[in-house]
Amino acid sequence: MKNLVSLICIFFLSLLSVESYSQSADEATIKQIFDEALSNGKSYEMLHDLTVNIGPRLSGSPGAAAAVEWSRHVMEQYGFDSVWLQPVRVPHWVRGQQELGRIISKKKGTVSVNVCALGGSIGTGPSGIAAGVVEVKSFEELKLLGTKGVQGKIVFFNRPMDPTKIDAFTAYAGAVDQRGGGASQAVKYGAVAVLVRSMGLNQEEYPHTGGMRYGDGNKIPALAISTKHADALSKLLKEEKDLQFYMENHSVTLDDAPSFNVIGEMKGAEFPEQIIVVGGHLDSWDLAQGAHDDGAGCVQSIEVLRLFNAMGFKPKHTVRAVMFMNEENGLRGGLKYAELAEKNKEKHIVAIESDRGGFTPRGFTMTVPKNVRDKIKSWKPLLEPYGLTDFDQEGGGADIGPLQRQGVPVMEFLPDSQRYFDYHHTQEDTIDKVSKRELELGAASMAALVYLIDKYGF
Amino acid sequence: MKNLVSLICIFFLSLLSVESYSQSADEATIKQIFDEALSNGKSYEMLHDLTVNIGPRLSGSPGAAAAVEWSRHVMEQYGFDSVWLQPVRVPHWVRGQQELGRIISKKKGTVSVNVCALGGSIGTGPSGIAAGVVEVKSFEELKLLGTKGVQGKIVFFNRPMDPTKIDAFTAYAGAVDQRGGGASQAVKYGAVAVLVRSMGLNQEEYPHTGGMRYGDGNKIPALAISTKHADALSKLLKEEKDLQFYMENHSVTLDDAPSFNVIGEMKGAEFPEQIIVVGGHLDSWDLAQGAHDDGAGCVQSIEVLRLFNAMGFKPKHTVRAVMFMNEENGLRGGLKYAELAEKNKEKHIVAIESDRGGFTPRGFTMTVPKNVRDKIKSWKPLLEPYGLTDFDQEGGGADIGPLQRQGVPVMEFLPDSQRYFDYHHTQEDTIDKVSKRELELGAASMAALVYLIDKYGF
Repeated sequence: MKNLVSLICIFFLSLLSVESYSQSADEATIKQIFDEALSNGKSYEMLHDLTVNIGPRLSGSPGAAAAVEWSRHVMEQYGFDSVWLQPVRVPHWVRGQQELGRIISKKKGTVSVNVCALGGSIGTGPSGIAAGVVEVKSFEELKLLGTKGVQGKIVFFNRPMDPTKIDAFTAYAGAVDQRGGGASQAVKYGAVAVLVRSMGLNQEEYPHTGGMRYGDGNKIPALAISTKHADALSKLLKEEKDLQFYMENHSVTLDDAPSFNVIGEMKGAEFPEQIIVVGGHLDSWDLAQGAHDDGAGCVQSIEVLRLFNAMGFKPKHTVRAVMFMNEENGLRGGLKYAELAEKNKEKHIVAIESDRGGFTPRGFTMTVPKNVRDKIKSWKPLLEPYGLTDFDQEGGGADIGPLQRQGVPVMEFLPDSQRYFDYHHTQEDTIDKVSKRELELGAASMAALVYLIDKYGF
Repeated sequence: MKNLVSLICIFFLSLLSVESYSQSADEATIKQIFDEALSNGKSYEMLHDLTVNIGPRLSGSPGAAAAVEWSRHVMEQYGFDSVWLQPVRVPHWVRGQQELGRIISKKKGTVSVNVCALGGSIGTGPSGIAAGVVEVKSFEELKLLGTKGVQGKIVFFNRPMDPTKIDAFTAYAGAVDQRGGGASQAVKYGAVAVLVRSMGLNQEEYPHTGGMRYGDGNKIPALAISTKHADALSKLLKEEKDLQFYMENHSVTLDDAPSFNVIGEMKGAEFPEQIIVVGGHLDSWDLAQGAHDDGAGCVQSIEVLRLFNAMGFKPKHTVRAVMFMNEENGLRGGLKYAELAEKNKEKHIVAIESDRGGFTPRGFTMTVPKNVRDKIKSWKPLLEPYGLTDFDQEGGGADIGPLQRQGVPVMEFLPDSQRYFDYHHTQEDTIDKVSKRELELGAASMAALVYLIDKYGF
């Protein structure tokens, strides 16, 4: 009996010691990941190349082509096992020069305001559009006005993002229907154009662009107006209901253009046919350097593989960094990647996107079975020291949505959200708005999660 | 028996319902605090006044005097129960015009570098100092060199902040001895001046100032050099050990100057003699607008009282916003406040400082008895939705240190630390580096904590 007790004790002690060994080995490896990222990290340097040397890179533009070549080149230079391009045809929308917005007031004269075409909008034609303005806060309000109130007018969608939402993405989600669907709704009642309040939380001089889509009806021009000027226009409309607004833009949609997803890969040592994807999108809006959206996600994804290489860490599973093309106005890259994954019978065990900016880490969102979330939450003690505390939210990412529909568990790096919409889709999304350390911490966070998934699976 | 069981059940159910009522009432009040701060907050507007309209405000300077008048005025305007000044004499150090640093190299010629006097430093005299340079990474290394290696030279302290520390304040704490004590150590071995690597984590063009203190020995000039130029100097020294360095500054310490702490108060409805302090320091370094350090802490403290006023919330205890004078180079304000608190037999139940910048909230540090920390941690479910998850670290704040020594529990608002040392004590600490929402969230976090302490005590 005594021997049996001893044996049992030894058995459990050995379990404990294995576990504590493993835990401290994981702690050490994760520290090594963060040390390398913070001491010798290349993510900021890469982001400088992508934003300052290349700059805006809307699908089909010369910038997008340069970004494809750059990311292929940089991953080859880092010596990943293989780097290749996935051809994909993408929409090719061109903003055109000279975008004008002017309030024409009897009281104030002509007041210039800052506007920009929403991505996908048609142009006004060379002589622009001048019309009366009707302000609404919602599609319901628009419907109540009906043809009688809207016909021949510019509909001004002016519902602000709700500043009381702590998560800025929730505030965005509550307002962005106006941008995406405003034109297709307003045209039903005979509107000649729409003007949409920019998706920003602050009083800003500059407008935010972003995708819009037409429905089956006629197409009318859709422009964004800066939040500051939206407030000014709204105020003036209260005093002078019949003021006129002049807008002019010259956007056109050309034929689809050839482009590419860019993929870098480290081959798995034990399960090479099982793939872990980390990714971001390589395209950006044309107004923006795309530093946070989504240069950050691209360089963080490349950095995950570079960190493993630099540490001499050989993952058991294949790890891929994927630069998706065309997230902003078509998602063709994400669709193509998933289509080929299915066709080639690739097995993806998880896909992790970074497309919420290069801000300080908070956690990961995920859309996964409960047991997977529980497994990830069991790693919290290893990740909390790095500010990663939130693993409860649903999420994934646009580019990996098509993989998700094939049953792949998806996750998204979750940085702090507060500053994202100060820059999103604007001229202000530049590298000086990115903190080097915050960017590096994000890359290391992604690498740490990949390391744990690679080691323990779900 | 059956009746007894019923009674017991009813008793416990009533407890549960009281608790859940209270919890949801707290949730609602805390949401109201955040809603007000994010929708109608005044902290950013106040910070604009303090940083753009007033600007740098080192103790004894005209800017500091203007900041005293401004904060008195603003708190009176908000209608707090009482607003008053606490006279305190403060050190009066003046940088002087023209600060020069030049590497004089046989190979490279004369290379200008960016330097600034550390606060409290003497001047070099009108003709500056030219001498050889000896680089060290620590006081131990300095000691090993001894008089033989140091006599007649400029000692260049060049140990960087450790980028692998996740908490940037830990990295700062590991390097700042060079700034504070470098001169007093180097003079022991006959150094003629010291040059200290700036306390920053990035490669920066601009130097960081900050406090230094002399010991009993002679005084020698102490200048900071930008991190970028520290690296350049270090590199050049490896090639050319006998290069010369020229430095010039004209700093002087004048007689102590009259100044003030500024205090605004809401009288407690039930326990007016029991005081909760929220505070920041009103002075800043002369190079800086002092937006994060510590304009943010000042306006957040005022905002706590303004939020309560705006909500019509009457605290049970007296709540004070204290703008401490002279944190940066003397702490005279903090000492004076505690001295008067003791003299007037005031009872402070807690003091909460904000002096880590206006960044996104992470939690609160505290130096309190265990039962107090446990009580605060029991409120975590109420605070976590606002990003406040870290209540484990020790801490307080320099200004409330003297109160702490009287036995007052102290806490400090804990925002994210990653960007703080990009700006700290430099020309870059300007309002454009402050996110309006992050600042507002910090103010609301402090108000939420004060609300809970006021309601439940410890």
